[in-house]
Amino acid sequence: MRTYLECIPCFFRQALETSKVAGANVRIQKKVLDRLGSELSGLPLRQSPPELAVTVYGMISRLTGKRDPYAAIKARSNRSALRIYPAVKRRLDRSRHLLRDAVRFAIAGNIIDYGAGQKLNIQKELRKILGSGKRPAARVALFDLPQLERALGKARTLLYLADNAGEVVFDRVLIETLKGLYPELHVCYAVKAGPAINDAMEEDAHACGIGSVAEVISSGSGAPGTVLRLCSAGFRRSFWKADVVISKGQGNFEALEGVRRPVFFLFIVKCAVVARDTGHSAGSMILHYVGKRSGPTAK
Amino acid sequence: MRTYLECIPCFFRQALETSKVAGANVRIQKKVLDRLGSELSGLPLRQSPPELAVTVYGMISRLTGKRDPYAAIKARSNRSALRIYPAVKRRLDRSRHLLRDAVRFAIAGNIIDYGAGQKLNIQKELRKILGSGKRPAARVALFDLPQLERALGKARTLLYLADNAGEVVFDRVLIETLKGLYPELHVCYAVKAGPAINDAMEEDAHACGIGSVAEVISSGSGAPGTVLRLCSAGFRRSFWKADVVISKGQGNFEALEGVRRPVFFLFIVKCAVVARDTGHSAGSMILHYVGKRSGPTAK
Repeated sequence: MRTYLECIPCFFRQALETSKVAGANVRIQKKVLDRLGSELSGLPLRQSPPELAVTVYGMISRLTGKRDPYAAIKARSNRSALRIYPAVKRRLDRSRHLLRDAVRFAIAGNIIDYGAGQKLNIQKELRKILGSGKRPAARVALFDLPQLERALGKARTLLYLADNAGEVVFDRVLIETLKGLYPELHVCYAVKAGPAINDAMEEDAHACGIGSVAEVISSGSGAPGTVLRLCSAGFRRSFWKADVVISKGQGNFEALEGVRRPVFFLFIVKCAVVARDTGHSAGSMILHYVGKRSGPTAK
Repeated sequence: MRTYLECIPCFFRQALETSKVAGANVRIQKKVLDRLGSELSGLPLRQSPPELAVTVYGMISRLTGKRDPYAAIKARSNRSALRIYPAVKRRLDRSRHLLRDAVRFAIAGNIIDYGAGQKLNIQKELRKILGSGKRPAARVALFDLPQLERALGKARTLLYLADNAGEVVFDRVLIETLKGLYPELHVCYAVKAGPAINDAMEEDAHACGIGSVAEVISSGSGAPGTVLRLCSAGFRRSFWKADVVISKGQGNFEALEGVRRPVFFLFIVKCAVVARDTGHSAGSMILHYVGKRSGPTAK
């Protein structure tokens, strides 16, 4: 997906937010915004938002002197999500449609997103999304579940593209379910090679215990989305060869939309631009299948 | 109120929105954002948002070639609000606390704000805000109503600072109520001297029929908020001499907060910055009294 003009105010909001998280004082925060402003006309909007974000977040890192501003937040998200893990598993034990409900949990975990949101209480947000005794669940559009089921039934390899720290725990729940349903399935779990907002890196994958059910690999890039052009050759091979690709989060969707292979996108729609692009309103939890188009592109 | 760094993403959002409303193509829209970006470091943030907005909207007007992008929207808002007027009056006829309920309507009318919001359905928004048979009304914080009642009881002159087109109809309802309660009160209704987003100008005041209950005057400035430094000397005299000043809208609050005379601010809190500043969460409908501080400042 290209970057739309509507994404620009959002870049400024994220730049300010990240500068604050990095502990920068107001003078540095202002410097970050001014620098972004002065570089704005040169940013190539034909690139996807996560690709542009590499430039923007790189600049923020240099000006604030913090290589990984979200490190503490990521560690906290991992811990919070792990505390919820047993309850999620108990709920799944009572499920009569394991795959559907595990997919729902995985998408719900996508609420842990500091690029689009602000401070959040994971448990409260999950209750809101999944519904509780009194309250119905949020809109879920899992129209493409039958395709996923069919694809998994025939697959030997699954590449699972991670999004955020903490969210990994919910990916683990889905992968554990998949391993139960399809014991022969080999799963690769791809994380970012370097800090990108609160995106999961190898340490987060291991902290959340995903190593026991999947092979953890790196995308080779620190973009907050799988921008194939910036990924390692090894990762790209895995991407094109995998029987099924599940992609978590809006950043990965923005980066991979239009890529010429089938991908199952699982995420919560977080802004009006992607809402327009997918046809699902902001806040929707979606399983969005982008189907068969042949062969790799230059990307 | 000074401009905070959090206002900067909002300036970009508003600049884009206004360029679209002005009918600019994507190339010009981008040019507007780029220009705002390149001028960002030079904007004096010690100025209030409405004062800065003069610079920003002036630039948008020059680049889009539209002096008054919101002209059609303003005319439409006036018409929509006038259609609701009879129903509002009927509701007030049944009221057992006229002043309180008229103040509530006047604040509710502040939902007609294209600077903070987007497209809107006035009737739907009002129903949401004022409550209907089934649904309770939104949070209203009229804590300072007794002070307003006391001040009006002793007043001979009231200066009423308008905010948006359409909203004027709801101001008219309040002013009509005041004239009923305090027949001797002389009311001046101050509008902007030039186009500023969808702020009311003289033609809007007259279209909404306010001329029958108040003397319509101009602030002498086209800022989207009463920035005294930019107002005419005549207006400033009225401002300092009036027994009571009622100020509508967040823009006027941003411009006048800290001014050294008592002002009753009536508005819906529209962003996190002003929420922090007033102590009322975004979406709150407030009557906010900023009390006695002696004498005019250099402002």
